[in-house]
Amino acid sequence: VSGFGIENLPFGARADAGGAATGIVVRFEDSVLDVRALAADGLLDDTGVPRTALEAANLDALLACGRVAGAAVREAVAALLADGRAERALSPLAGTRLALPFTVGDYVDFFASLEHATNVGRMFRPDGEALPAAWRHLPIAYHGRAGTVVVSGTPIRRPRGILPGPAGPRHAPTEALDFELELGIVAGGPANAVGVPVGVDEADARIFGVVLVNDWSARDVQRFEYVPLGPFNGKSFATSVSAWVVVLDALEGARVAPVAQDPPPAAHLQARDPWALDLELEAELQGGRVTAGNSRGLYWTFAQQLAHAAENGATIRPGDLFASGTVSGPARGSEGCLLELTRGGTEPLLLADGSERAFLADGDEVTLRAQSADGTVALGAVTGAILPAH
Amino acid sequence: VSGFGIENLPFGARADAGGAATGIVVRFEDSVLDVRALAADGLLDDTGVPRTALEAANLDALLACGRVAGAAVREAVAALLADGRAERALSPLAGTRLALPFTVGDYVDFFASLEHATNVGRMFRPDGEALPAAWRHLPIAYHGRAGTVVVSGTPIRRPRGILPGPAGPRHAPTEALDFELELGIVAGGPANAVGVPVGVDEADARIFGVVLVNDWSARDVQRFEYVPLGPFNGKSFATSVSAWVVVLDALEGARVAPVAQDPPPAAHLQARDPWALDLELEAELQGGRVTAGNSRGLYWTFAQQLAHAAENGATIRPGDLFASGTVSGPARGSEGCLLELTRGGTEPLLLADGSERAFLADGDEVTLRAQSADGTVALGAVTGAILPAH
Repeated sequence: VSGFGIENLPFGARADAGGAATGIVVRFEDSVLDVRALAADGLLDDTGVPRTALEAANLDALLACGRVAGAAVREAVAALLADGRAERALSPLAGTRLALPFTVGDYVDFFASLEHATNVGRMFRPDGEALPAAWRHLPIAYHGRAGTVVVSGTPIRRPRGILPGPAGPRHAPTEALDFELELGIVAGGPANAVGVPVGVDEADARIFGVVLVNDWSARDVQRFEYVPLGPFNGKSFATSVSAWVVVLDALEGARVAPVAQDPPPAAHLQARDPWALDLELEAELQGGRVTAGNSRGLYWTFAQQLAHAAENGATIRPGDLFASGTVSGPARGSEGCLLELTRGGTEPLLLADGSERAFLADGDEVTLRAQSADGTVALGAVTGAILPAH
Repeated sequence: VSGFGIENLPFGARADAGGAATGIVVRFEDSVLDVRALAADGLLDDTGVPRTALEAANLDALLACGRVAGAAVREAVAALLADGRAERALSPLAGTRLALPFTVGDYVDFFASLEHATNVGRMFRPDGEALPAAWRHLPIAYHGRAGTVVVSGTPIRRPRGILPGPAGPRHAPTEALDFELELGIVAGGPANAVGVPVGVDEADARIFGVVLVNDWSARDVQRFEYVPLGPFNGKSFATSVSAWVVVLDALEGARVAPVAQDPPPAAHLQARDPWALDLELEAELQGGRVTAGNSRGLYWTFAQQLAHAAENGATIRPGDLFASGTVSGPARGSEGCLLELTRGGTEPLLLADGSERAFLADGDEVTLRAQSADGTVALGAVTGAILPAH
């Protein structure tokens, strides 16, 4: 199974030569299906989704219509594929240029993996408690830079930054460029009014779909700058997302019970029917697998993440992106970033070509993948190659 | 002098009853001038700015045209006011509803005041160095929530959050609601390409104009959540900005040499002709002045802030908002937030009605003001009244 059969049907957007979105497409196996063409023929009218949203350049208007609208279009497309009426709207995926599928509103990155938070805490704060005092009481997060979220395939320029050093800080290209393997939730509408929280049981309805995320990080820059306001230039140069948004309904079969939380969170974060996603995750570096994990072990659920971000009355807008933070497992080799895999660079990885990596080298290509345990539903892969610093 | 005479002419946007922007206006004394009407009559054609940008609902397209375009329109409007041709496009400011003047791209909040950083450091980290190790080497900042930036006059709902307490964390309305008196830079186009930094000497050209900012803060929420990823829910519920964007050219007369920096920053942050803004700032609480300061004392300049945010190659888009962080002076009574003014709530302020405030009470109204030393140019005031928690 490919992971992109009739069970999946994720949404994306075609791009012109400059990378601008030019129309919504659905992926089916190794083809893309032109949603505008189907809509123009009236074949999606029964979904109740306005044609303007379906004939738009990207997913923004469809996201505003909400999760139910996305599910309805996906079901209608499945029916049209099954009875052959979608045939003439199909074209090969190969050679199709894909755009960032939606305009990112706010981009939030959580810290939801207990193993990741503990591992990083040990390295960044060797003299203190590994886990921050608040960690088990709320899903810690920061706002990232929405304007530098890019689609899979976009090359990543090695950033410069102010690096700490024995002779004092210096300005240089990062020497600790890293990837972070994460899942991301794409919010759908309608937006909650300012000042009105989104309850944890209402959060599911605001989750339009799921993407895979690589939150590129410059560890030396991050480490020097992060007290007390958190990561900034060590993260803001680029975040890559998959070209495909998998609607939450396509992942019904991957829902599992989440891990137990100790202590129990505050009442407003306790869902009636909590769920995690049983997705197998992996990262490849130069074509060789360097980590393999699973998102079912995340401590904080996606519904808790979204409800926490809105519990102060902050508006969640369609197109807001909520990433989980690095997904790391308890086993050696299941950590979701090089910082952990190489223990801060002290235990370099041996690649297939015999070279070693503490952190990413210029020219390196990283690919992230995710799929359900039975392989029927995959997220879009996220790739990026490192360009040398300017 | 009013601060809104012919020397100023800031840009804003009219709002409909729902708060949506419906057209660009310029403020002149106690009137607003309809830019769409002038553009439709061809009176702004000589500026070279496309009519579509001038007839738009808000400033987004004008910001994309860049700082020079804004300055050209302002000059043309001044000439039309001087010779009487703008007369019939004027209407009273009173009764005019104003919108958030532009769509906020990314919202960044700096920590550029040495006094503020030191004061807060002493309170939040009593056992450590008040000033973070990196503070004098780079302008520390975090990304705030763009989706909750609201225009002056918008009521602010007291947020709930997870608060620390002797019996363990609890979920409750904040008990330490605060304002922060800040200046903000609104970025103009054209955007730098991803991966290409903006030099400190190129930064001025990207500064379209200046707004006044109130970065509302829930200190108890912030204090519990901020390690290690920085403030999140303690800030993200609301940030208020003035309805008027004062173009940088209108502030030529307020430019002064900035304070000396020790140690000198890295070469890429050293401007040939550095400048600060000599603006007198004040905050009123329930109509009485509670602080008065000046932005000329900010340690990090606006050009350095913008250049730092882009030095890793991050795109600066038109509509990105860069706030200075709380502007505090060295003298008692010149601190830009209640946390400092009341020493963490231990020395409450006495208001004119005889009541005391450690932090903001429901029903309180806060107003921020700023003007040049000679009073000729004012920023738009920023007001907000506190609604009780939901």
